[in-house]
Amino acid sequence: MERIGFIGLGIMGKPMAANLLAAGFPLTVHNRSRAPMEELAARGAATADSPAALAATSDVVITMLPDSPDVEAVVLGEQGVLSSIRAGCLFIDCSTIAPASARRIAAALAERGVEAIDAPVSGGELAAREGTLSIMCGGSAEALARARPIFAVLGSRTTHVGAAGAGQVTKAANQIVVALTIQAVAEALTLARKAGVEAARVREALLGGFAQSRILEAHGQRMLEGAFEPGFKLRLHRKDLGIALELGRERQVPLFGTAQVAELMDALLAHGAGERDHSALALLYERLSALGGPGGG
Amino acid sequence: MERIGFIGLGIMGKPMAANLLAAGFPLTVHNRSRAPMEELAARGAATADSPAALAATSDVVITMLPDSPDVEAVVLGEQGVLSSIRAGCLFIDCSTIAPASARRIAAALAERGVEAIDAPVSGGELAAREGTLSIMCGGSAEALARARPIFAVLGSRTTHVGAAGAGQVTKAANQIVVALTIQAVAEALTLARKAGVEAARVREALLGGFAQSRILEAHGQRMLEGAFEPGFKLRLHRKDLGIALELGRERQVPLFGTAQVAELMDALLAHGAGERDHSALALLYERLSALGGPGGG
Repeated sequence: MERIGFIGLGIMGKPMAANLLAAGFPLTVHNRSRAPMEELAARGAATADSPAALAATSDVVITMLPDSPDVEAVVLGEQGVLSSIRAGCLFIDCSTIAPASARRIAAALAERGVEAIDAPVSGGELAAREGTLSIMCGGSAEALARARPIFAVLGSRTTHVGAAGAGQVTKAANQIVVALTIQAVAEALTLARKAGVEAARVREALLGGFAQSRILEAHGQRMLEGAFEPGFKLRLHRKDLGIALELGRERQVPLFGTAQVAELMDALLAHGAGERDHSALALLYERLSALGGPGGG
Repeated sequence: MERIGFIGLGIMGKPMAANLLAAGFPLTVHNRSRAPMEELAARGAATADSPAALAATSDVVITMLPDSPDVEAVVLGEQGVLSSIRAGCLFIDCSTIAPASARRIAAALAERGVEAIDAPVSGGELAAREGTLSIMCGGSAEALARARPIFAVLGSRTTHVGAAGAGQVTKAANQIVVALTIQAVAEALTLARKAGVEAARVREALLGGFAQSRILEAHGQRMLEGAFEPGFKLRLHRKDLGIALELGRERQVPLFGTAQVAELMDALLAHGAGERDHSALALLYERLSALGGPGGG
């Protein structure tokens, strides 16, 4: 089995690394803070003090980090992966970052004879723990084939969408659809309730027709219950929309809807809702329609 | 079997009336233009020269008309249904109109001892022909029970959502979700294509996760193929969003997303796209991102 080095043991990264360890992969881990490293060390993982030290003893390096600058620093920076990784190794980035950044990293690694896969995931913490993530991959078919046994542990569905960066483009598209569908459901259910119709019945009726979606089912139910503990945090979804909007500017695609939802999310973030589930977008509608005032109903 | 009077033999109304006739209901029809009346007369329907004449010989009056003013005129106007309908009859409006209008009509009929159901449908012309419409009903449980044998012919799913007007509120909610989901899919697939990723693969990848919806499946496929013959016409969806926005103003719900999509639809209508399928919203993104110019890609 390939020796795996895993960098970034956050909410998503830690359970992903733990699953690889449980599946029998020899694992070395690195993280900025020590606590999660020690937790995995207690279960049999080796630890490394820097990305460079980790890459020196790994066949496959996986990163799961917050944003583009984090991945660039860990790969291209001082004591970074690039400084020690050997030709013939494989690099897999599961973070959600800008496609341009993913391509830069892939190009730098390619010069060292290292193939890169951008492999952002969806499904959240629960799917990370259960190994049922949906994985969107950009990279060569050969690199993908090599990574399959690893993805089989991490996720239940892996889609190869194109060359380096394509996984990140697909993830951006995914986050656009999820954000706008949440807005759609929030507007529809708030309107129904304020117009005196039981929102639960409306959700039920809509699930039977063209308005059906997984968001209406899952996040619609969250809105009915006011159950806004994450799930997927609003501030992280906002970060992902920033990537989508940047890509839209680069490619001259006017993302009217995405831009608007990002603004609405910012309004919620300004009121401290960033740690709530992204379905909490409904709170904005709830609050604004409860303002009352002259002529208020 | 109850004697049915059917008013409004348009794209939706004609196949609905034909299905009731085929199911054995004694049927009288009325329409502004004569051609569809004669077509149904040839298959055994009686015809009436006015809504009043039709209502005088019917136990159940059904309307399927373009908009609120049409239904109000046919029911409340000169030679209208209200002038001749007898106590104990049932009125069913399958049009998509303003909830306030539906309530006004129900109140006027109630004074004459006539119960009303607002029963807007979704599923389009195909479902109208096949008798597989999804029907969203507002009215009393007793009226609904009485209408069941009729709805069983017209649709495959009938949901009772509340009192008079609730069906129209639900339909407005439905049209909001459908419009914003179409926008979501249009932004996501246009962005993916302009960023060099095959949109078909992105659609496929997204269908496996939280971005899944019937719109992504059906209308996403239309966008990939550029297949914008209706379906459901853009101008009719825009009309329905007008009802939703009016309801939002009445109930003080700020429908940011709905308002924006309505504006974008207006831009397309101004360019003559009103007779296309509502998934043609994607054309707007397609065209704007193809403008090029200085720095254009």
